[in-house]
Amino acid sequence: MKPVLVIMAPGFEEIELTAPIDILRRLDYEVVTAGLESRTVKGAHGITMQADSLLVDAEEKNFAAIVLPGGPASWTLRDTPRVKKLVQEFADAGKLVAAICAAPIALEAAGVLKEHRVTCYPSVKAELTSAAEVSGEPAVTDGSLVTGRGPGAALAFGYALAAALGTTEEKVAQLKADMCF
Amino acid sequence: MKPVLVIMAPGFEEIELTAPIDILRRLDYEVVTAGLESRTVKGAHGITMQADSLLVDAEEKNFAAIVLPGGPASWTLRDTPRVKKLVQEFADAGKLVAAICAAPIALEAAGVLKEHRVTCYPSVKAELTSAAEVSGEPAVTDGSLVTGRGPGAALAFGYALAAALGTTEEKVAQLKADMCF
Repeated sequence: MKPVLVIMAPGFEEIELTAPIDILRRLDYEVVTAGLESRTVKGAHGITMQADSLLVDAEEKNFAAIVLPGGPASWTLRDTPRVKKLVQEFADAGKLVAAICAAPIALEAAGVLKEHRVTCYPSVKAELTSAAEVSGEPAVTDGSLVTGRGPGAALAFGYALAAALGTTEEKVAQLKADMCF
Repeated sequence: MKPVLVIMAPGFEEIELTAPIDILRRLDYEVVTAGLESRTVKGAHGITMQADSLLVDAEEKNFAAIVLPGGPASWTLRDTPRVKKLVQEFADAGKLVAAICAAPIALEAAGVLKEHRVTCYPSVKAELTSAAEVSGEPAVTDGSLVTGRGPGAALAFGYALAAALGTTEEKVAQLKADMCF
């Protein structure tokens, strides 16, 4: 299985970054976290975490999916040309593209939402003009797009991502139980 | 309001560390994370985070509560005399003592569980021999003890901790909504 790329931009929402990585690594997926400009990145609530790699160094790998955590980082992700191009390349190749909270605005900017059902943080709903439908569900999978609503839905988003990567329903259910979800 | 002390030992469960800090900082509580031996600490699923302080430097502050995240770190917390002493001092002073997942074993070792209702990760339930009752609830507050069940209950544990620190029910409900919980 190819690894999963998680982008760490300054101001990432800490639970939204941590939960999907935690869940995927528990299922033995390889996850590579990549910082935009630095390997040391501070989250929205003051927790500084270390990325495994710089994005520029990670790009050479062949990934199965790209994950964009939300928080104030979402606007940086949206406005970073390298991220926009990566999202477009993943979508064009039919690879999984995942974003939570406000980060779906980066998918809108990359033009990959078209005709898809998604979810997002309520306050950015109006910005996702090209989506077919913006639901209020914790997590939504539609084709190769996986979206999550906010930090309180970060675990649901992680489980949806695991299922979209091919983890069986039984294994996801077992993991939920193991995590006391 | 006095700050909240969160102990970061190697192998901490990342969601269990992140969720309560995130929740408390959203509510404007001061939170100080303290590493046992190093300010750079690696979690159970390979995410390395930076503590605000070393525990030895943080101890001079006057804290309102101590929080022990779980994961493999729980056994280190249990077996570290400085942590045991701190937990006893907080309990003796009537300050909040909080632990999640397997970390309540450190409260058992410190002798502060006596006659309290608690929750914990199912596999360590048998070790909490001095508790009055070990429930299967996501989070339990009993007197000055707040306990959580596991990573899937880390948000519930964070909200319970906020309430135990004096955040009103309305404010906790509002935060849950803001976080799409």
